[in-house]
Amino acid sequence: MSEKINQQQIGAFLDALASKAPTPGGGSVAALSGAMAAGLVSMVCALTIGKKQFADIEEEVRGIYNQSEQLRQELLDLAQADIEVFERLSAAYKLPKTTEADAASRKAAIQTVTRQAADVPLRTARAASALLPLCASLATRCGRLVVSDVGVAALLARSTVQSALLNVEINLAALDDHLYVHEVRARIEDLTIGLAEETLGVTEIVRGRINQ
Amino acid sequence: MSEKINQQQIGAFLDALASKAPTPGGGSVAALSGAMAAGLVSMVCALTIGKKQFADIEEEVRGIYNQSEQLRQELLDLAQADIEVFERLSAAYKLPKTTEADAASRKAAIQTVTRQAADVPLRTARAASALLPLCASLATRCGRLVVSDVGVAALLARSTVQSALLNVEINLAALDDHLYVHEVRARIEDLTIGLAEETLGVTEIVRGRINQ
Repeated sequence: MSEKINQQQIGAFLDALASKAPTPGGGSVAALSGAMAAGLVSMVCALTIGKKQFADIEEEVRGIYNQSEQLRQELLDLAQADIEVFERLSAAYKLPKTTEADAASRKAAIQTVTRQAADVPLRTARAASALLPLCASLATRCGRLVVSDVGVAALLARSTVQSALLNVEINLAALDDHLYVHEVRARIEDLTIGLAEETLGVTEIVRGRINQ
Repeated sequence: MSEKINQQQIGAFLDALASKAPTPGGGSVAALSGAMAAGLVSMVCALTIGKKQFADIEEEVRGIYNQSEQLRQELLDLAQADIEVFERLSAAYKLPKTTEADAASRKAAIQTVTRQAADVPLRTARAASALLPLCASLATRCGRLVVSDVGVAALLARSTVQSALLNVEINLAALDDHLYVHEVRARIEDLTIGLAEETLGVTEIVRGRINQ
């Protein structure tokens, strides 16, 4: 798939996803779902900025908007990066291994690219996790008509973190560098702790305001 | 936005989402995230069907594939339907209300369209929830290289159900027909019960196979 992900039509992207083509896969989908979460946060900010009744929080909301727009771009780039690293990984597995020297350099190439393949979803998880405090800030104070959008953003951010981390783990399982694996497992732990509670905190506020 | 969602480029869709344009919003995003989950289920099936080592489950996987492809189309259609019903709802709110008769027919129109606006995400939640048993069937038996994709599908399916239900609830809050609201609340309960456990069941199998 040579067309960049942002230029692909949604229908064609979903068709390629559902096919046995090697890309896109779960890593890109996770990042894209995070980009949609970021887009919802930006939308809620855009509908808040410039309105008289929200004048007292306008500066803060502008700050949230800048962060969510940066995260949206980053997550879209990570969806593309996931496709590219997967292609490099497939290429590495196809390297010759007939001689001992070939086999050794193939193995080294696979290790290098697998590490990159773990790093991309790790960055996806980190970016999506940075959306949750933004959702929490907006949930209590945004307009009531868009409060469900904040809830959807938080739910998608959480599943993006969890989905991306599964993609980190499957790559870690193929890595020999135990020190690196150990370090990444610690980061996975950091990104997982409190994730469910943070999301529930947002959705409870959202549900409370919907039914108030 | 007159272009159908499946023909929109991903970048342009995300830009429209992040803007203050009235559509797309959380309801379409929830449905689209469900369509991606369905696409991942189909992908895993497509990579299983026709392979010698999976011959004994091929018939069953074909059945799963047919269901996930149907759900993928349904969820993409619901992403579009959500945009259209939101546009009808905005139009209903803009109806004249100067005379008493106008106000009464405006109110009736709003009630009718709000009910449709609750029904669309309810169908989204139901379709996404139908993906979870498919993920559970695949998780134990699909190829180990795609097991993380099954996990991502389950995580996205869950957040689609929860996100769509927030969109149902925000519309219910504006409805006067208490019998209908009561019925829908019962369906929300049905779709919520066991959802977290069902998803965790899939991700635990996935994580177990990743680290085996």
